[in-house]
This record gives sequence, C-alpha cells and structure tokens, in this order.
Amino acid sequence: MRTTTYLGLAIGVAVVYWGVILKGGDVTIFQNWVAALIVAGGTFAATTLSSSRMTAVHGLSVARRIFVLRSATSREVAEELVSLARQAKARGPASLDPEAVKVRDPFLAKGLHLVVDGVEPQRIEELLRLESDILSEKRRAAERMFRLMGTYSPMFGLVGTLIGLIQMLKGLTDPRAIGQGMSVALMATFYGVLLAALIFLPLAGKVRTLDQDERLVRDQVVAGLVAIRLGQNPEYVRETMDTFSQKAPRA
Amino acid sequence: MRTTTYLGLAIGVAVVYWGVILKGGDVTIFQNWVAALIVAGGTFAATTLSSSRMTAVHGLSVARRIFVLRSATSREVAEELVSLARQAKARGPASLDPEAVKVRDPFLAKGLHLVVDGVEPQRIEELLRLESDILSEKRRAAERMFRLMGTYSPMFGLVGTLIGLIQMLKGLTDPRAIGQGMSVALMATFYGVLLAALIFLPLAGKVRTLDQDERLVRDQVVAGLVAIRLGQNPEYVRETMDTFSQKAPRA
Amino acid sequence: MRTTTYLGLAIGVAVVYWGVILKGGDVTIFQNWVAALIVAGGTFAATTLSSSRMTAVHGLSVARRIFVLRSATSREVAEELVSLARQAKARGPASLDPEAVKVRDPFLAKGLHLVVDGVEPQRIEELLRLESDILSEKRRAAERMFRLMGTYSPMFGLVGTLIGLIQMLKGLTDPRAIGQGMSVALMATFYGVLLAALIFLPLAGKVRTLDQDERLVRDQVVAGLVAIRLGQNPEYVRETMDTFSQKAPRA
Amino acid sequence: MRTTTYLGLAIGVAVVYWGVILKGGDVTIFQNWVAALIVAGGTFAATTLSSSRMTAVHGLSVARRIFVLRSATSREVAEELVSLARQAKARGPASLDPEAVKVRDPFLAKGLHLVVDGVEPQRIEELLRLESDILSEKRRAAERMFRLMGTYSPMFGLVGTLIGLIQMLKGLTDPRAIGQGMSVALMATFYGVLLAALIFLPLAGKVRTLDQDERLVRDQVVAGLVAIRLGQNPEYVRETMDTFSQKAPRA
Amino acid sequence: MRTTTYLGLAIGVAVVYWGVILKGGDVTIFQNWVAALIVAGGTFAATTLSSSRMTAVHGLSVARRIFVLRSATSREVAEELVSLARQAKARGPASLDPEAVKVRDPFLAKGLHLVVDGVEPQRIEELLRLESDILSEKRRAAERMFRLMGTYSPMFGLVGTLIGLIQMLKGLTDPRAIGQGMSVALMATFYGVLLAALIFLPLAGKVRTLDQDERLVRDQVVAGLVAIRLGQNPEYVRETMDTFSQKAPRA
Repeated sequence: MRTTTYLGLAIGVAVVYWGVILKGGDVTIFQNWVAALIVAGGTFAATTLSSSRMTAVHGLSVARRIFVLRSATSREVAEELVSLARQAKARGPASLDPEAVKVRDPFLAKGLHLVVDGVEPQRIEELLRLESDILSEKRRAAERMFRLMGTYSPMFGLVGTLIGLIQMLKGLTDPRAIGQGMSVALMATFYGVLLAALIFLPLAGKVRTLDQDERLVRDQVVAGLVAIRLGQNPEYVRETMDTFSQKAPRA
Repeated sequence: MRTTTYLGLAIGVAVVYWGVILKGGDVTIFQNWVAALIVAGGTFAATTLSSSRMTAVHGLSVARRIFVLRSATSREVAEELVSLARQAKARGPASLDPEAVKVRDPFLAKGLHLVVDGVEPQRIEELLRLESDILSEKRRAAERMFRLMGTYSPMFGLVGTLIGLIQMLKGLTDPRAIGQGMSVALMATFYGVLLAALIFLPLAGKVRTLDQDERLVRDQVVAGLVAIRLGQNPEYVRETMDTFSQKAPRA
Repeated sequence: MRTTTYLGLAIGVAVVYWGVILKGGDVTIFQNWVAALIVAGGTFAATTLSSSRMTAVHGLSVARRIFVLRSATSREVAEELVSLARQAKARGPASLDPEAVKVRDPFLAKGLHLVVDGVEPQRIEELLRLESDILSEKRRAAERMFRLMGTYSPMFGLVGTLIGLIQMLKGLTDPRAIGQGMSVALMATFYGVLLAALIFLPLAGKVRTLDQDERLVRDQVVAGLVAIRLGQNPEYVRETMDTFSQKAPRA
Repeated sequence: MRTTTYLGLAIGVAVVYWGVILKGGDVTIFQNWVAALIVAGGTFAATTLSSSRMTAVHGLSVARRIFVLRSATSREVAEELVSLARQAKARGPASLDPEAVKVRDPFLAKGLHLVVDGVEPQRIEELLRLESDILSEKRRAAERMFRLMGTYSPMFGLVGTLIGLIQMLKGLTDPRAIGQGMSVALMATFYGVLLAALIFLPLAGKVRTLDQDERLVRDQVVAGLVAIRLGQNPEYVRETMDTFSQKAPRA
Repeated sequence: MRTTTYLGLAIGVAVVYWGVILKGGDVTIFQNWVAALIVAGGTFAATTLSSSRMTAVHGLSVARRIFVLRSATSREVAEELVSLARQAKARGPASLDPEAVKVRDPFLAKGLHLVVDGVEPQRIEELLRLESDILSEKRRAAERMFRLMGTYSPMFGLVGTLIGLIQMLKGLTDPRAIGQGMSVALMATFYGVLLAALIFLPLAGKVRTLDQDERLVRDQVVAGLVAIRLGQNPEYVRETMDTFSQKAPRA
C-alpha cells in the first residue's frame, strides 16, 4: 500500500514540476495563494457541508492506513494464526487471551476473545462477518468522501477562474493586458484539475483497493479462528491460510 | 448535523468572499440581479416542473431538520428508552402513554401507542419498519430534488451567459467593449456553478447522510420498544442501546 | 400535476423573457428560425430514429396526462371506492357493472368487470398488478424518450453553432464582423440548452413522479376492489383507503 | 422499424442540409475529406481494437434488420401460429415440419422441429428461452458497439480539430488568417458530434427497442408452440396470441 | 484477439498520421516531449497511486494475452478435450496426468489433476468454477485499470495545456506570439485525448471482450472434464463441445 502511494505521489509531483521547468518556466509563476485558497477552501467547505462529523473520522483513519501504517500481509497473518493454533493445541484455547498473546490488530483481538469465551463456531463467524461489514462500510464512506472532493475541486477551480476572469474583464482597458490576467485566472482551474487528477480521485481508487485487500485478510482471520475454535491441528490451519495467501495481493 | 452544515456554509462563503477581496476586487462587481434571476428562477422553474407538490414539502421538512432542529443523538435516545423501560417495570406498560410521558419524536410516540395498546412484538416491529421506510423514501425524494437543482443551476448559468453573450456580440462595434460585456455575461455561469458546488450538491449529500443516521436511530428505537414490550428489564435495554450507540455517528 | 406543470413552465419562460428584457435587450434578436429548425428538427429526427412508433404514442399519452387531464386524487378515488362498496352491500356485487356505475378510469373499470364476473380475489389482485406493471412500463418508455431528447437537443445545439461558426469563419475578412456572426451562431446552443433545461429534462422527471403517483393510486384501487370482492363493509374499505391517502401526494 | 429508421434519418439529414443552405451557406464548405478520414477512421479503429470479430458480425446482422428486412408484426406471427395450430389439429403435429410448412424465421423453425420431435412442452419452453437469451445477448453486443462508436466519434472529432488548430497556430503570422484555419479545424468536431447525435447514439437506442420487440415476439412464438404441442385447439391459440398482440408495438 | 488488436491500432495510427500529412502538415510539429512526459507520467502516477502492486501484474498479464499470445479457439479446445476423452477410454483416467499429456493451459492442467485424483464430478465443477471466477476477477481489475487510465490521461492533457497557457500568457507582450504558444500548449490535450480514445478506452473494452471469451472457453473445459470424469464416450464429449463452439466467438 505505502510503496505505491508514495511512488505514485512522487512521480506525479516530479512530472508536473519537471513539466514546468522543462517548458523553460519559472516555478514561482505557479504559486498563487488566492487560487489555492478558493480551490482548497471551497472543496473543504462543500465536503464539510455534505458530510457528518463521522465521515472526517473515517477519512483520517483511512489516510493514516494509506500513508503511515504498514498493513500486515496475508503471509504474516497466516504465520500469526498458525502460531496461535499451535499454542491452542499445546496449552488449550483459554491461553489465547488477546492481551496475553500480544495481538495488536483489533479485529483479530475481538475474534480471540470470542474463541476464549467458547462461543459457538457458527456464531463466531456470524459476529465477525458483521464486524467486517461495518469496518468495510467505513472505508466506503471514506471512498465516497474522496470521490466527492474529486468532483468539487474542479468546480471550485472553475469558480476561481470565473472570479479572476470577471474582475480582469471588468477593468480591461488595454487588450494587451488580457494575457497577464488570463494567466492568473487560469491558476485556479489548474489547481482544481491537478488536485482531482493527482490526489482526490486516485485516493478514492486507493481506498477501494485497500478495502478489498482488508476484507480478504479479515476473511482469512475468520477462517483461521473458526478452525482454531474447532480444535483443528496447526497443519490444517496452515493449509487453509495458504489458499488465501495465493489469491491475496502482495502489497 | 447543524454544526457541519453551518461550518461548511460559513467556510465556503468566506473563502469565495476573501477570494474576491484578495484578488484586489470590488465585491459589488459580483452583484448582478439579472444573472441571479435567470439562474435562481430557472432552477426553481425546472425543479417545479419536474416535481409534484409533495416534493417541495419533503424538501422543506429536510431543510428544517438540517438548518434548525437539533437531532437527538444516539445516546440521548438510549437514555430516553432506558428511562421508559424503568417506568414500564415500575408502573406497567400502560403508563407509557406518549402524551403522559411527553415524547416529542413522532416515530417514538407512534411506537409507544402500539406498546400501550398491547400489540404483538412481531407486529410492532413490522409496522415501525414500514413507517421507517416511508420516512426514508421522503428523505430520498428530497435528496433527488437537491441533486436535480445541482444539475439545473449550471445549465441555467450557461443559458444566462449565452443571453449576455448574444446580446453583447450583436451590438458589438468596438472590440474594446468586449471585455466589459463578457464580464457581465460570465456572472450567470459564476452563480450557476457556485450554487451547484456550494449549496445544492452538498445539500443532496447531506440529506443522504441525514437519512442514514435517522434510519440507524429509528432501528435503535424499534429494538428498544420491542424489548420494553417483551417486559425486559432496564439493564437489558441499556445493553441493547449501547450496541447501537457504538456504531452511531456522533454528530 | 397540472398546477406544478404550468407554474414551472410559466416561471421558466417569464424568467428567461425578463432576463432578456432586463439586460436591456431586444427580444427579436433571440428569434432565429434556422437555429430553431436545426435544434428542434435534429432532436426530433434522432428521437424518431432511436424509437419505434409506439414510443411516440406513449409520449403523447403522457403529455396529455401532464398538460390536459386532471388526475383523480387519492381522496377522490377513496370516495369512489367507498361508494362502490356501499352499493355492493346494498344491491349485490352484480350491480357494479362499470357502464352502469359510470366509471371513467379504464383501470378501475377493468377491475370492476373482474369483480362483477366473480373472479377469485387472489386472481383479481394478480391480474390488476400485471396490468399496472404494463401501464407503468409505458410511462417509463415515455420518460426514456424525454430524457433522450434532453441529451440530443444540446448536441444539435452544438451542431447548429458549429455550422454557423464554420460558415462565418470561412468568409471572415473583417475581424470586426466576428461579433455579429458569433452572436447568430450561439443561438443554436442557446436553444439546445434551454430546451433541455426547461422542457425535456424536467418533463422526464415529471413523468417519473407521475408514474409513482399513478402506481400508488392503482395500488389503492386494487386494495379497495379486493375488499369489495371479499364483501367487506364500507367502513372497512374507508379505513383501508385512508392508509393510502396518508402517504399519497396531494397534487 | 424501417419506417421510423428512414424517416428519422431523412429528417435529420434534411434539417442539417437546409440549415446549411438557409444560413446562406455553400454546402461545399462542409466537405472536408481529411476531417472525415480522421473521425470515421479513428472511430472505426477504436471500435475494432475494443471488440472481437464477432461484434462486427452482430453489428451487421442488426443493421440488416434495421435497414433492410421487414420484421414480422405481432399480428402476422399470431396468424401464422393459428394456422399452424389448425394444421396440427387436422393432420397431426408431425405435419409441421419447418421445411414442409415453409417457415422462414429460424427461431420458429427451431421450435417447430422440437414440436415435431415430440419434445416435452416444459423442455421446449426451456430450450427456446435459452435460445432467445442468446439471440438477445447478440443484440446487446451490437447496442454496446454503437454506443461505443457514439462515444469515440466526438473524441476523434476533437483530435481532428486539435490537429488542425495546432498546425494552423504553429504557422500563424497573420492573425487575419485565423478565421480560415479555425473554420477548417472545426469541421472534424462538426463531423464527430453529428455522427454521434444523428447516427451512432440513435442506432444504439434503436437496437435496444428492436431487442425488446423481438423478445416479445419470441415470447409469443414460445407460448403458441407450447399450446400447439399440448394439442390445444386453434381458438385457444388465437386468444393467447391476442393477449400478446395487445401489448406488442405496431411498428 | 490479436488480429483485431493490431488491425485497430494500425488503422488508428495510420489515420492520425495521414490526417497530419494530408493537412499539409509537418509531422515533427507533433513531437513534444514535455507534453508527452506530463500526460504519460501523470497518468502513470495517478494509476500507480490508485492501485496496489497486484493491479500492475494483472494489467501486464492481460496485455501479454492481447498483444502476444494466441488464444486457443473454442474448436481447438474441443479437439483437445475429445482426444483426452479418447485416451481416458483407451488407457484409463489415470493416464491423463497433465505433465504426461503435455497440456499447457494452467486451467485445463488444474482440472486434469482433479480428474486424475478421482475427485467427485460435482466437486470438480465447483472448484473449477471458483478458479474461473478468480481468474475473471483479475481481468476485471485490469479492465478497471485501463478505464482509469482513459479517465486520467485527458485530465493530465488539460493540466499540461494549462501549464503551457499560463506560462505563455504570463510572458505575453506581443499578441502575435500567441499562436505559437497556444500551438505548443494544445499538444498536451492532443496527447491526452488521443491516448484515451485510441489506446486506453479501447483496451478496457478489449479486456472485457477477452474476459467474456475466456470464461466461455473455461465453461467448455469444465463441461468436457466433468464428462470425461463421468466416463462418457468421446462422441458424447464432442457433442457437448459442439454446443459451446456454436456460440463461441471465432477470434
């Protein structure tokens, strides 16, 4: 996740930067704080208005996952569940207390609590699937938020350009000054389109990819915990995990 | 709901206002009553034509909820239902008459009537879910209306700009006057895009968020009332309520 | 239906007309028969090509309903069914012959025939629901037609403007004549966008609203006729009708 | 089908032709082979690249049906099936050999083979529905192809116009020559939009309408053949056919 | 697959090339490395950001299938399965070891392993359908990737053109130099639209077509293997295969 995130962002910024330089241009031309204010502020305002406070929480949580945290890979999750299965065989399922075994993923911890409490396997699967759906719904709320931002930012780019154009044309006496005015007015559209194409829409796509991967890993956790609850031996758990690891993404 | 509504609107208006000022502009340039008439009037006309009278009623009801009323939070609803459960235990379910216990939410009042009348729990759930679906459908009608307005307003912005352009170009003899004319003509597009991006489309999104939250709270009310009807003790009702409060939004 | 139709149209036309006048403009500038021919003719041609003859029939039927006929309100239908229930109680169901009781709505007439013929209640409901679905499908065909027209008309507006532009630019020798030519060329776009925003797209929305209302009234008729067929007393029929009238639109 | 096809095309071409003439224009201005090559060739290339060879076969088959063949109306199909039912009564179902009774529609012929072979009625219905779905899927593939062409043709119109603009602007020394160059460059956009609005998108809509009509007629054939297989008398078959003819389109 | 791929690409490139030449233009004008960098680099960056590493793997796998590999036709697959059925009859199913019979398609090989291992027919069908769904999901991931690229490339075309415009207008002193600057700025839009219309969107469509064909062939393989597992004779297998070959595409 993080690799493609930073690689994509780095290439995108570099390409636009070099594009400006290579065209023999001065980068400072492209710094226009008023245009940036209108586009970023307007997009933020429209997104705030159309959401509830929770959407921002989901958005920040997803941003943290995409930019900061390293997701556990399918193989690591497999290793963890196999070692839990070994411990359950050796010292009994009661020894799997999440605090004792130092599990950090809250979904796995919740599942272990159910195993330790001796909940029926069918019921464990049901409860964890419900939890998985709720987590997935939060990701989708964040995806919708980023997609909305990708819709609003070019619209506020247009708003900013119209403000610039109207002011410039209003005061126009010398047609030769039109170039300078247009140049400044177009900055807002430039920001709006660039933000949508390089940040908001790709991030929405990323959240979708993230959600699919996370759901797959959670399915894996559910399958592993149910096998442990049923007292299957560690070899069986490893085989079950391998089926998932085959179809799971590597990053 | 109200916090994000007013915050979003305030930021949006401030950003556009400052954008105009900071560009060294005169705000009065951006007051053009003819353009405003065409955009607002045309959008209103097209929305009227495409709707029935009820749509306006749903739209106003939703606007009141978004701008004026404070929605009961999931926790407040939980408190109210737990206290109703206590009263039912202490003085019997017949004491829960909505007028007597001063319940203001019509949905809860309707449910209490059913409890007082001794309707079967299964039937209470069925009737309240049906009522919840009807209320939700009204919200969706309002959402469609705002979304339509967000589609029509840029179209009438274009209509207004075309009117201005055609008149200006028709009478054009001095090419230097083109700037002034263009400036006025573009005002309609400015209004149309701004209304869509800052008001109509975000409001449509807001109504969707509102509908999701309201449905969650109504599900909570249904679960609480059914538990009360079944004579469950207040502790049980509180636990049921807590499950809902966990997934419920905080604003 | 008719109220919002004529109100919407009147406001829309007035707003555009006043917009032209208030901008100090001459309304005759906006009469361009060639542009009108290209936009209206092209839209008509493309719609004809993409439809079968039946689509036009459905479209005209819906236009008649929207512009001319007054739809029976839910309350009127309730009154009619309650009075039919009274007559069935007093003089037997055989007296409900549609010709004798002067029923004008073909759907109700068809249902009465089934009641008079003594068809099983279950079968009556089944047959009338099928008929209701077929009627609804015709409305949806008309809705699709209006939506298509709202897509084609701006495209032919662009075609007309391109024709004007190409001719004007071809013969351009004096750059000062460009204003006049542009002004005429833009007329086609003006017509195309105005037709879509003020007529075709709102009409498509209206047909959708109409279809929803009509289906609700037909559901009411079905419920009433089944109750009459089962020999329920008029009071029961009135109560059933009232449930529908509550959720039914008022216009 | 053919009536509305040719009527639509004739009106569309006439309207655009008259539009050009009435604007006092020379039609030869609008003949630009390079622009036509880029738009038609590019659209053809992109459609070829995005399809397999079969899509072209389905497209040609549908074009033949729309432009050349006269579809059997619902009433004609009814007549044919009633006469087949009579023959089956008179000389036994074995006499219905498709070659002997000169049936030209391959779907009806296939069904008659099944009747002659004495296949179970249930199985006949099942096999013919499957065949009907396969035929319908081919129509939908053709619809998708035309819709794609309607998306690609304006894009290649833009490509052609950009080629013209870039070349013209590159060599621009005398600003007065800009009109002539723009005029030629805009031709490609004109072709692209006209092809999409007058040919490709309406044809996609037409194929959809055709598919709906054909499926209805095939449903009619299935109902008729099953009735014949069950040895129903011709009067029963006629009644069944009439139900279909009522909802069937007339052209 | 490959035929239509290369034919489409060749026609598309030829048409654009001839368009440039025929307009009397110098092809070298259309080589602008900065514009190419911004469009291709930006599209690559946004696609990288919105995907995970696996998407690229699926994309390359699909590109290899479309451009390099020759897909086995339905008839060839039929021949192979009939010959496998003959061998199974002659020397027993155990002789069908994929390594021994030199099967190269991994899906068929996986199926043969199941047949050799004597897995139940029902279970073979179930396992192979699951595998087929997973393979199909990978194709759809690739389709989404190409469709995203077709959305991003015109957006970065616009970004490139805005960079060029802003720089050009900023430094504009002599209005006669505007032509030259515009010409260069428009190159990015030209690249962006051309890439989307000629490469990315058609490739997305192609992957969809490919996926449908592959699924049909895999269904054929499943049907053949199940028949072999059930010990059906080669004639029966050939008949089953023929049903599929009839509806299968020829290229």
